[in-house]
Amino acid sequence: MKHQSAPVHQLPIRVYWEDTDGGGIVYYANYLKFTERARTEWLRGLGFDQSKLRDEAGVLFVVREANIRYRQPARLDDELTITVEPQSHSAHKILLRQLVRCGEVICAELQVELVVVDAATGKLAAIPEKIQNSLI
Amino acid sequence: MKHQSAPVHQLPIRVYWEDTDGGGIVYYANYLKFTERARTEWLRGLGFDQSKLRDEAGVLFVVREANIRYRQPARLDDELTITVEPQSHSAHKILLRQLVRCGEVICAELQVELVVVDAATGKLAAIPEKIQNSLI
Amino acid sequence: MKHQSAPVHQLPIRVYWEDTDGGGIVYYANYLKFTERARTEWLRGLGFDQSKLRDEAGVLFVVREANIRYRQPARLDDELTITVEPQSHSAHKILLRQLVRCGEVICAELQVELVVVDAATGKLAAIPEKIQNSLI
Amino acid sequence: MKHQSAPVHQLPIRVYWEDTDGGGIVYYANYLKFTERARTEWLRGLGFDQSKLRDEAGVLFVVREANIRYRQPARLDDELTITVEPQSHSAHKILLRQLVRCGEVICAELQVELVVVDAATGKLAAIPEKIQNSLI
Repeated sequence: MKHQSAPVHQLPIRVYWEDTDGGGIVYYANYLKFTERARTEWLRGLGFDQSKLRDEAGVLFVVREANIRYRQPARLDDELTITVEPQSHSAHKILLRQLVRCGEVICAELQVELVVVDAATGKLAAIPEKIQNSLI
Repeated sequence: MKHQSAPVHQLPIRVYWEDTDGGGIVYYANYLKFTERARTEWLRGLGFDQSKLRDEAGVLFVVREANIRYRQPARLDDELTITVEPQSHSAHKILLRQLVRCGEVICAELQVELVVVDAATGKLAAIPEKIQNSLI
Repeated sequence: MKHQSAPVHQLPIRVYWEDTDGGGIVYYANYLKFTERARTEWLRGLGFDQSKLRDEAGVLFVVREANIRYRQPARLDDELTITVEPQSHSAHKILLRQLVRCGEVICAELQVELVVVDAATGKLAAIPEKIQNSLI
Repeated sequence: MKHQSAPVHQLPIRVYWEDTDGGGIVYYANYLKFTERARTEWLRGLGFDQSKLRDEAGVLFVVREANIRYRQPARLDDELTITVEPQSHSAHKILLRQLVRCGEVICAELQVELVVVDAATGKLAAIPEKIQNSLI
């Protein structure tokens, strides 16, 4: 397990009607959408498009565990910042910390465990070496 | 084009938090989810599971056109009834009328054009004969 | 009814995993999410935040009718452009044409009728004059 | 904190196209939708509709923490069973264990912490006594 002092990746996300619920706040499942978008852009920033990983390398990134702490609700029109902070990785998993912030306020805090599976069989696979190397 | 006097298929659907938005009503895109669920159960009732159609016949049903009229908002905890009323079909498309009702109130009214595509190429394909026959 | 030759507003949208379905393409209801985001940014560009309209003017924009033609599927990682093209408006409704494009390809084409309702009663209301004027 | 030996509540849920993603499996955020539906029906079974709690008691149930372990993917047309198993509760929170099963296979396992907030202010509130009593 290598521990990271990698730079924190950020993605800005605007809250739209689709994200809110009848309680007037962002629906709790949608934080998983926001954080997935940020992870996708973080991987893209490292040079890896997931559609290509699937089509060319035959692998998919999937979340094996997610722990979410909801701190403050986000609301319609809020401008959120989603961070991706790699914490450690091995050949088979990547641990990330992610924050959903609105200005200085932390709306939600996540710990995410990413693994890679074979797209055809669904079985656990090694993280492609190129990606492992880009995480060092 | 054969015109139908087929029985109307119905699916009950409960409105959950995920379906509502910050306006306190069901988010407008979610009516397309509800009506898709009803079409899926209608096809299943005719003997056709779409996962099998994809895996065994290599075809997917897709919507080519949808016209929606929103009449009255649905709200959290409402018990909706979604109908599927085949109106006509040919070898290449099926026209359906669908209603989203809450009790006697019509919340939304749709006209949907369904076609079938090859799952691999995305190209238009004929509706499998078995399905065509079951629509007569 | 005033007919417009207004400039076309555009919003870029990236396709993420959340937008796709098991057919490998963007789920058909999600085009309504994309086009709603574009309308929200179009209104914001005119000076109107919908959260403020709700909290200060007590009104909500809602879609009364949407007609969608699906032309070509969009896929994971696609970079879409969503346009908003006002076609005409009266004191009570706005008609828009919207396109979802991927490069030069038109993925979907919509006609949308927007109305304004009182946020408390849900009853039809006049479009605030400021907004009407900004549409001329 | 009272520890429960309450009966396990169950909700059957069918997987539709809307639930799947381009990887051919249920999108990871949607397990939070499924488990929320099951919690809603569990509360309804105890006699509490959340729309009435909001409108009459002015309170909302919200999730403060969710820990999810994804074990096996669910797929289109799967018939899932979602369980709600209260583990303990105090005046301010309820801890639940929830499973998403497909037949005998556990697809996902969750620990959820539910709290109650004032619908107007968003501030933490006591769980209504009637509900506390129904949990004993």
